[in-house]
Amino acid sequence: MNNIEKVKTLIIDEPLKLDCGQTISNFPLAYETYGTLNEKKDNAILVFHALSGDQFVTGTNPITNKSGWWSYLVGPGKAIDTNKFFIICANVIGGCMGSYGPSSIDQKTNKTIGTNFPVITINDMVNAQYNLLNFFKIDKLFSVTGGSMGGMQALQFVANFPDKTKTAIPIACTASHSAQNIALNELGRQAIMADKNWNNGNYFNTESSPNNGLAVARMAAHITYLSKKSLEDKFGRKLQERDSLKFSFDADFQIESYLRHQGNAFVDRFDANSYLYITRAMDYFDLIKQYKGNLSNAFKNSKTKFFIISFTSDWLYPTLENKEVVIALNAAGANVGFIEINSDKGHDSFLLDVPDFLSSVRNFLEANY
Amino acid sequence: MNNIEKVKTLIIDEPLKLDCGQTISNFPLAYETYGTLNEKKDNAILVFHALSGDQFVTGTNPITNKSGWWSYLVGPGKAIDTNKFFIICANVIGGCMGSYGPSSIDQKTNKTIGTNFPVITINDMVNAQYNLLNFFKIDKLFSVTGGSMGGMQALQFVANFPDKTKTAIPIACTASHSAQNIALNELGRQAIMADKNWNNGNYFNTESSPNNGLAVARMAAHITYLSKKSLEDKFGRKLQERDSLKFSFDADFQIESYLRHQGNAFVDRFDANSYLYITRAMDYFDLIKQYKGNLSNAFKNSKTKFFIISFTSDWLYPTLENKEVVIALNAAGANVGFIEINSDKGHDSFLLDVPDFLSSVRNFLEANY
Repeated sequence: MNNIEKVKTLIIDEPLKLDCGQTISNFPLAYETYGTLNEKKDNAILVFHALSGDQFVTGTNPITNKSGWWSYLVGPGKAIDTNKFFIICANVIGGCMGSYGPSSIDQKTNKTIGTNFPVITINDMVNAQYNLLNFFKIDKLFSVTGGSMGGMQALQFVANFPDKTKTAIPIACTASHSAQNIALNELGRQAIMADKNWNNGNYFNTESSPNNGLAVARMAAHITYLSKKSLEDKFGRKLQERDSLKFSFDADFQIESYLRHQGNAFVDRFDANSYLYITRAMDYFDLIKQYKGNLSNAFKNSKTKFFIISFTSDWLYPTLENKEVVIALNAAGANVGFIEINSDKGHDSFLLDVPDFLSSVRNFLEANY
Repeated sequence: MNNIEKVKTLIIDEPLKLDCGQTISNFPLAYETYGTLNEKKDNAILVFHALSGDQFVTGTNPITNKSGWWSYLVGPGKAIDTNKFFIICANVIGGCMGSYGPSSIDQKTNKTIGTNFPVITINDMVNAQYNLLNFFKIDKLFSVTGGSMGGMQALQFVANFPDKTKTAIPIACTASHSAQNIALNELGRQAIMADKNWNNGNYFNTESSPNNGLAVARMAAHITYLSKKSLEDKFGRKLQERDSLKFSFDADFQIESYLRHQGNAFVDRFDANSYLYITRAMDYFDLIKQYKGNLSNAFKNSKTKFFIISFTSDWLYPTLENKEVVIALNAAGANVGFIEINSDKGHDSFLLDVPDFLSSVRNFLEANY
């Protein structure tokens, strides 16, 4: 998390009442844009990132020096064409890439806020990002989109602001976090909290962060992003740089080495407390309950045209859960398209080079612009 | 792990050459029996336990004071009827319920062996348990059975000793551990090793064991034992002893509370180093590779009658992998039956009250005895 001061930041002075009851104000929202807002201001797409994402959608992420997380989808000439559209993406509140979160400094104490940060929700994240429309003087977005937690934010955005986007593309998501997904997130949180360095969230005052715990949480999550078949095809039982089993606890298999790498690389760019807060927001997400058990009420005033996308091998946010949103939208009389993309790459499909997915998004955007 | 001295133990004086190259001898194998061996000694069933199991198959486990792990299946009048059959079950080597394992005391140093214990395999476990036949003077077992890692041992037993059992019932298992399962086991190992108390396995000399890490490993495993649907049906988004979200990191949801309980209860009865060794043995299991890529060669000399059982909602050892064994057995000209039981309880189905499963085992045993 070096060079975090380099990111573009908007200070939200409008007070924001959070679902927990607290009100925050004068807080930073870090964002990035790609492409150019046209004169009519009708070509803006607000992209929402997922759990481990950030505002650096495409190009080179200036903090990590790696490609943006949606480089396959977004860019000049790509499915979300930055020659045509103006892309805005903000780091969610609770995050660690410049937006107000547990690693922000409390001005009163000059220490990081840590677990004094309020527990936030997907609704809070979306309401914070709504300020971007005022900032860019956009009356109505052309689209909102995102995968996984990004898709949940897209659903929440339309529910909260039914007149503020022409289209919406929620991808590989759900209207209500499942018990299995709560369980998997709780596993990650417990891995972090089990690390003695976590120290109830007050680790910025000490030499070391709960890197071991965060790496384990990331490993667990990473397994769930892939399908059984993709793991088998990519790794199988292939050994790591050796011809035979080593009869030790070193990484014998390539899959072990890969997971260890994923865990260790993550701690360089992510804050453990942010991981706790963002997974908590995901678990709290229940748009069905927000609308008293009737999801279609979330969309009954919306003129937004929806395109819901799921992937066959995604077992984290399976087609079944995406279809529940389609059914609710139909019940609300909304304009809704749906496609289940054939892919054996699991939940990660929305981040990868899956041609049918990329062309589906491209075609929907072109047909409706 | 109190009262471990109370368990029945056989000392194996026959040297056992392990797959890693080391030879062990004069080591303890803890076991339990249920029912009575008949005069012809043709009614014995050797049961193999799974990762977190032990020799206490049914009745009350004298160490934990809880029911034996296979109480639904095994007992007087039950599917595996202890009024009719003589059941033998041993704690696997590498385990922590009295058999030779990392928590055994090294006589030379008077300390626990820890990670000086050799890395063992499913083959080693089975070869160690073969000594039970000599001990009970049984020439041929009536059956071998077990679920999950127990099923793998059953397959290995028949491969190693084609004349030594009349029947075999491998349940919810595989002939070759998948990349996804290696990944999940590695996650558990890394959770343990991330705990500072693990201390490279030398934690019996200190005040504290790596309980946090072991609890996280157990939580991770527990999620995989259940199906998405069973988690949804059992827990859904039900809150734990409260009416509304608490906006904290306490266990808001029942599923969180359940997982925390599962993790904490496990550390009272299981040794973290044993968890490392046993998961490693599972990951190393590849009967296909043992037989040079042709699984049917593992069974080509066997007169054993097989009954393979899988469960529809088991995503850890799915029907597909169980069927690979059936196909290989057919290719070897073996006598093989197969059933996929409809159950939405996931991998754990083999431990639960699933009537079709219980009656299938009962019918197979009765028809062949």
